[in-house]
Amino acid sequence: MTAYEELSKEELLELKSKLEAEFEEVKAQNLNLDMSRGKPSTAQLNLSMGMMDVLTSDSDLKCTEGVDCRNYGVLDGIAEAKQLLADMMEVPKDNIVIFGNSSLNVMFDTVARSMTHGVMGSTPWCKLDKVKFLCPVPGYDRHFAITEYFGIEMINVPMTPEGPDMDMVEELVSSDPAIKGIWCVPKYSNPQGITYSDVTVHRFAKLKPAAEDFRIYWDNAYGIHHLYEDKQDYLIEILMECKKEGNPDMVYKFSSTSKISFPGSGIAAIAASDANLADIRKMMKIQTIGHDKLNQLRHARYFKNIHGMVEHMKKHADIMRPKFDIVLNTFEKELAGLGIGSWLAPRGGYFISFDSMDGCAKAIVAKAKEAGLIMTPAGATFPYGKDPHDSNIRIAPSYPTVEELKLATEIFVLSVKLVSIEKLLAAK
Amino acid sequence: MTAYEELSKEELLELKSKLEAEFEEVKAQNLNLDMSRGKPSTAQLNLSMGMMDVLTSDSDLKCTEGVDCRNYGVLDGIAEAKQLLADMMEVPKDNIVIFGNSSLNVMFDTVARSMTHGVMGSTPWCKLDKVKFLCPVPGYDRHFAITEYFGIEMINVPMTPEGPDMDMVEELVSSDPAIKGIWCVPKYSNPQGITYSDVTVHRFAKLKPAAEDFRIYWDNAYGIHHLYEDKQDYLIEILMECKKEGNPDMVYKFSSTSKISFPGSGIAAIAASDANLADIRKMMKIQTIGHDKLNQLRHARYFKNIHGMVEHMKKHADIMRPKFDIVLNTFEKELAGLGIGSWLAPRGGYFISFDSMDGCAKAIVAKAKEAGLIMTPAGATFPYGKDPHDSNIRIAPSYPTVEELKLATEIFVLSVKLVSIEKLLAAK
Repeated sequence: MTAYEELSKEELLELKSKLEAEFEEVKAQNLNLDMSRGKPSTAQLNLSMGMMDVLTSDSDLKCTEGVDCRNYGVLDGIAEAKQLLADMMEVPKDNIVIFGNSSLNVMFDTVARSMTHGVMGSTPWCKLDKVKFLCPVPGYDRHFAITEYFGIEMINVPMTPEGPDMDMVEELVSSDPAIKGIWCVPKYSNPQGITYSDVTVHRFAKLKPAAEDFRIYWDNAYGIHHLYEDKQDYLIEILMECKKEGNPDMVYKFSSTSKISFPGSGIAAIAASDANLADIRKMMKIQTIGHDKLNQLRHARYFKNIHGMVEHMKKHADIMRPKFDIVLNTFEKELAGLGIGSWLAPRGGYFISFDSMDGCAKAIVAKAKEAGLIMTPAGATFPYGKDPHDSNIRIAPSYPTVEELKLATEIFVLSVKLVSIEKLLAAK
Repeated sequence: MTAYEELSKEELLELKSKLEAEFEEVKAQNLNLDMSRGKPSTAQLNLSMGMMDVLTSDSDLKCTEGVDCRNYGVLDGIAEAKQLLADMMEVPKDNIVIFGNSSLNVMFDTVARSMTHGVMGSTPWCKLDKVKFLCPVPGYDRHFAITEYFGIEMINVPMTPEGPDMDMVEELVSSDPAIKGIWCVPKYSNPQGITYSDVTVHRFAKLKPAAEDFRIYWDNAYGIHHLYEDKQDYLIEILMECKKEGNPDMVYKFSSTSKISFPGSGIAAIAASDANLADIRKMMKIQTIGHDKLNQLRHARYFKNIHGMVEHMKKHADIMRPKFDIVLNTFEKELAGLGIGSWLAPRGGYFISFDSMDGCAKAIVAKAKEAGLIMTPAGATFPYGKDPHDSNIRIAPSYPTVEELKLATEIFVLSVKLVSIEKLLAAK
């Protein structure tokens, strides 16, 4: 294929008119498609329907410790749920605490607690003039929303194929005591699907923060969310790595079963050092009498153990893989070599990240909307919604059906081409 | 009966030796009884077992709005759960937001949000030199724990048979802008079982706070938790009352189904004005994608409507009533007229409040423990755990079986008598 940049004005105009005709055709179908959020599809939800039958009125509702899960008690999770999620998070079961249905909520509460009470005895952040977080970009909009909500200044750190730019991370974290955290999605990252390399994880564990209350917010949302049986990314376990490097308290690890069982009705957990967990429990015992133990029991009995969960994830992969294939194959066929966009082919997670020519992302999202396709707003993958290059677009292929996805990808590709041609024509 | 005070030293010594013999007899049984927490009994939990069968793999899991409850979405609760809890809380359904499993957690988050973000635009409390809460006493220890955790100064306000001393509340609230809240359990209060009178509620609604961000924390935990079909307390609905008085934003109302369905696996809600809810949602949409909608659906379908819930509460009452009767009848028979303690006979709720002679509560709880009976720690019903008279003891009759409760009450009565005699002898 010839790169668009090398086409003459006349060739671009000709191509434009052909693509516009195609676009009008799709538009006429009055479609209503959504690739905006990492929402599991109905077929994926159906995979866990057996969970609805695990606990019935005939069930013994005592957990292994003998506690009646229907009643008050057990602050930080029943033993079988802790074991399951500890295995999922690759940490000892004594190093996790189970929460409610949302790991986002756990992250929010972690920042909120640091604001009012500091971290393991440090000055509450609300008493400080300035608090900053590092934000690898592109990243997860809901992370950035939490730090923005608390008035925390966010500093962009570019992602590389190995993870965040660690030269920059090391330099900033070791020199500026106002930097209290960094948001990481270390495996199958949101939105690029990048898994941090061994070297990157090592460098994280070896950080020498200027702030004693600096913490790595390690949101391992997609730890077992592979697309392929034979091509999987491996991520070094950060808690152990930090411990080995003499920084046992430097990391909070978050995860949940939202994209394993049911989003919104899963169970979430934090993994951290004993000292961090003691700090967390101090708040937790004031905040609640305990989380939903019946739902913990339901999860533990349904999956039985980590092997059951891993087998379950293969069924998710079988549904997700063809969807990623449609998007990636279409991109390869329609966009490769045109010089108007780049993307990565992830091995897991929920997203494909697309980078258009500079200054085109907002226009592409708007164009797609004209034809009835909702994308994540351009800019959402950056703090404050501001993508300095206006080029990154997050694609979430999970929710539409395969048929819908074919149409959606077609619309997206047409939108990319048309907006790119406009830009190139404007420069001619 | 003769009041102990009127007995001579010799009579007291004789009585003491007789009671000590009885106490030793009970102690020899090596009992293990617990009247410390307001925990429903197993028989009560069994009442809701049908709830485990409401949602199965054959169920339609869409709520009335057509949303699949298994997936993300619906920030503030599905319509049928909002209707059910709105009826339970006696407010319009547009004035409630459904949360997770714990109303305590909602209260905690409400205070936490006020600390970091203020209330409807007011200065965040963490930026103020001093924040104070009024605490009707005796009251609920977990309320006091929240305000203590956030470094909020607590001011005791005595309870009367009509509710808190409103002269004092009015005086303090209208004069001190540092007073930002008051903790209330307005119906079948914890621990006294007092329901605020019409006059008290009216006076609450008419408060003229010095602080614009003053809020009444109205924890209506026992709104439909009656003991009797024919003797019920009625509480005026505070939201409407505040609205009528031109103070629509002055109150947050909290409730949950913890003691209706399953403690720890129920659903909680807040009711407040539109303006307050808008403020709350600003935080909520950052904190979570949504709470557990399957559990909301399970509750809505199980109870069907408020009538179903009220009928269900009669079954709870049938289990609770005999337990309250045992304690109250034993007190009447064993303690009335002795001048060594007083109590109220509540018409609902979870507790009986006992007031010993001054300076005896801690000793009574310690004495009971000698014979294997765990009570709520003396002092717990006061801020900072400090009962200025050392006289209030909270009795929670719900959890033990009827047989256990007979023994527990016997131990308690013996402990009261023995400690009172010690005190009287010391003064002779």
